[in-house]
Amino acid sequence: MQTSTLACALAIALLTAGCGPRTESPATDSAAASTAPATTSGASIAAGPAASPELLAQAKALFQPIPDKAPDPAGNPVTAEKIVLGKMLYFDGRLSSSGVISCNSCHNVGMGGIDGVPTSIGHGFQKGPRNAPTVYNAVFNVAQFWDGRAEDLKAQAKGPVQAGVEMNNTPETVETTLKSMPGYVLAFQAAFPQETSPVSFDNMAKAIEAFETTLITPGAPFDAFLKGDARALTADQQAGLKLFMDKGCASCHNGINLGGQAYFPFGVVHAPADAVRPAGDRGRFAVTKSQADEYVFRAAPLRNIAATAPYFHSGNVWKLQDAVTIMGDAQLGATLAPDEAEKIHLFLHALTAPIPKIDYPELPERADTTPLPADG
Amino acid sequence: MQTSTLACALAIALLTAGCGPRTESPATDSAAASTAPATTSGASIAAGPAASPELLAQAKALFQPIPDKAPDPAGNPVTAEKIVLGKMLYFDGRLSSSGVISCNSCHNVGMGGIDGVPTSIGHGFQKGPRNAPTVYNAVFNVAQFWDGRAEDLKAQAKGPVQAGVEMNNTPETVETTLKSMPGYVLAFQAAFPQETSPVSFDNMAKAIEAFETTLITPGAPFDAFLKGDARALTADQQAGLKLFMDKGCASCHNGINLGGQAYFPFGVVHAPADAVRPAGDRGRFAVTKSQADEYVFRAAPLRNIAATAPYFHSGNVWKLQDAVTIMGDAQLGATLAPDEAEKIHLFLHALTAPIPKIDYPELPERADTTPLPADG
Repeated sequence: MQTSTLACALAIALLTAGCGPRTESPATDSAAASTAPATTSGASIAAGPAASPELLAQAKALFQPIPDKAPDPAGNPVTAEKIVLGKMLYFDGRLSSSGVISCNSCHNVGMGGIDGVPTSIGHGFQKGPRNAPTVYNAVFNVAQFWDGRAEDLKAQAKGPVQAGVEMNNTPETVETTLKSMPGYVLAFQAAFPQETSPVSFDNMAKAIEAFETTLITPGAPFDAFLKGDARALTADQQAGLKLFMDKGCASCHNGINLGGQAYFPFGVVHAPADAVRPAGDRGRFAVTKSQADEYVFRAAPLRNIAATAPYFHSGNVWKLQDAVTIMGDAQLGATLAPDEAEKIHLFLHALTAPIPKIDYPELPERADTTPLPADG
Repeated sequence: MQTSTLACALAIALLTAGCGPRTESPATDSAAASTAPATTSGASIAAGPAASPELLAQAKALFQPIPDKAPDPAGNPVTAEKIVLGKMLYFDGRLSSSGVISCNSCHNVGMGGIDGVPTSIGHGFQKGPRNAPTVYNAVFNVAQFWDGRAEDLKAQAKGPVQAGVEMNNTPETVETTLKSMPGYVLAFQAAFPQETSPVSFDNMAKAIEAFETTLITPGAPFDAFLKGDARALTADQQAGLKLFMDKGCASCHNGINLGGQAYFPFGVVHAPADAVRPAGDRGRFAVTKSQADEYVFRAAPLRNIAATAPYFHSGNVWKLQDAVTIMGDAQLGATLAPDEAEKIHLFLHALTAPIPKIDYPELPERADTTPLPADG
């Protein structure tokens, strides 16, 4: 008991000092426990005191744990073969015109599913207009991109491949490239066995979507908590959760992903500083052309948020504590006391989970007919 | 027997058509077999007829199979902790000033350990001066880089991190970055337990070198052959091996890596075309300043060569068959008949092996004190 108290105090000290190492935080300890069946009492490594039944009930009404397996996306039944193909495509820079920029370049599976820069660096080292959202648990979002302009992950996957500032390629060149490599032809045939011409840009997107359904992180302390482990959160995290719900954060950030489900103006009460919300990016207005959608964005999903700095669509805020304070002011008109912001920040660390096991795929060899990189 | 003959014929057809998919070629079939003890007769999937004892003896005198484990590099005992740390560093773009270029960007472990472009794309999308050599089996080379200017992998690892056209960083910023993250501090402490200040640029390089000793590919058909499986090569590959030795290719390309052991002028008999050997790159002359070293390069290691196009230090030759013909002319003054070049090319495919299993590492979270990307 003394040992666990000491470990807990140490972990809190680390967290308070900034972002604790994922492998040492109470997050991971509890996460490991949470992979055991929730009913196995005693297997859980307690991070804190038992939460009240009221807190647990209030949380369960607003949030859901990440399931062990994501449901199949609409119109795209997931198979093992599709996942294998999708993983190869996700890591293959040859989907880009330069030959070196892949999905993983900006949605790095080892870095919380992001790239850790304000806005992504793409073709020609150009910078994109918005911060790269994490690929982890993206399958649970109602739509993709900050403005929700892609209805699902297969629609999303087609965007960066063609964007001039990202991968700068064309569907035609992608198809020619993939069709040239026997390794890909076989993998597409296996993934789409009913089709006479399986190697296509559409099927590329479907396979990537299938792989991305495996990029989920159900092992966070908050998942264990939602599944009934009343001791999965530290006392401070429980207090932070209570504040998160009572102050109104959970009005937008709820569901499986604590966000990602609906659209809201950024700046409900006060317009954030221009550095945080650049005037030139009017959000969902660009999608709907409705004045009501000016500066409207999809509520950011908060899963693994502590691992995905910098923050906001501008990527101009590096500290999670600052992001919490900015949101309190802009969205709720609530000036959070430093102690309150700190507790909410500690609660957000309880959303961090280990990443799934991902074997680096061996990519098919090029053939003599494979198109050369754009200026190769 | 009929099935294996058919599979063999199909595989040869695929190979003849270009680069066969690695997962379907006889290379991989035999490679799988070769991971079984060589003495387990019957476990081997024969790729061809039994080679003559003379061919096997001649080959054994010139080449060695890749061992299952690389020896420890000088001055750097390899431990499990050092490998874990080195793998994180290898995949971490935060060693670069932009935050997004890692060792794996140019030495991609899923793409034969290279990037598949003529010369690498680095900071600011600048192009480097030479083609990226493969990281696979690099531990068996006598020295690193095309001109051998780094005596080992730990010396090599420091170069790209600092090169303005590659990762564009400084040792000081790398150290500040690594020291800021508790996850890295713990990993360095575990990897260098005797040291009072383990987080250093030197130890970064040692850890990367330790990880790179695991990037070896002992499962090629040619390894099985050298270990005594006389049927591991197809008839054409055996003929190609014989030509490779008798025509003189093996004078420079021998040992474990079929190259990588010594320095030779590129153009012993005829100077290659300027596109292949650009006049401005005088090779090892830049290292030794000796006229005798003009256009001298380390003999390219040929392991997995079929998976590492484009070829030569210029990266200007995309077809392995063309590279074979160019070498025959430039180095041996031998105009290889198309049939001879084709058989040597097929033999080179027998040097392709499956990559080792590499779990994508979860990289430490940044801390509030972690330096921001250069212009982030």
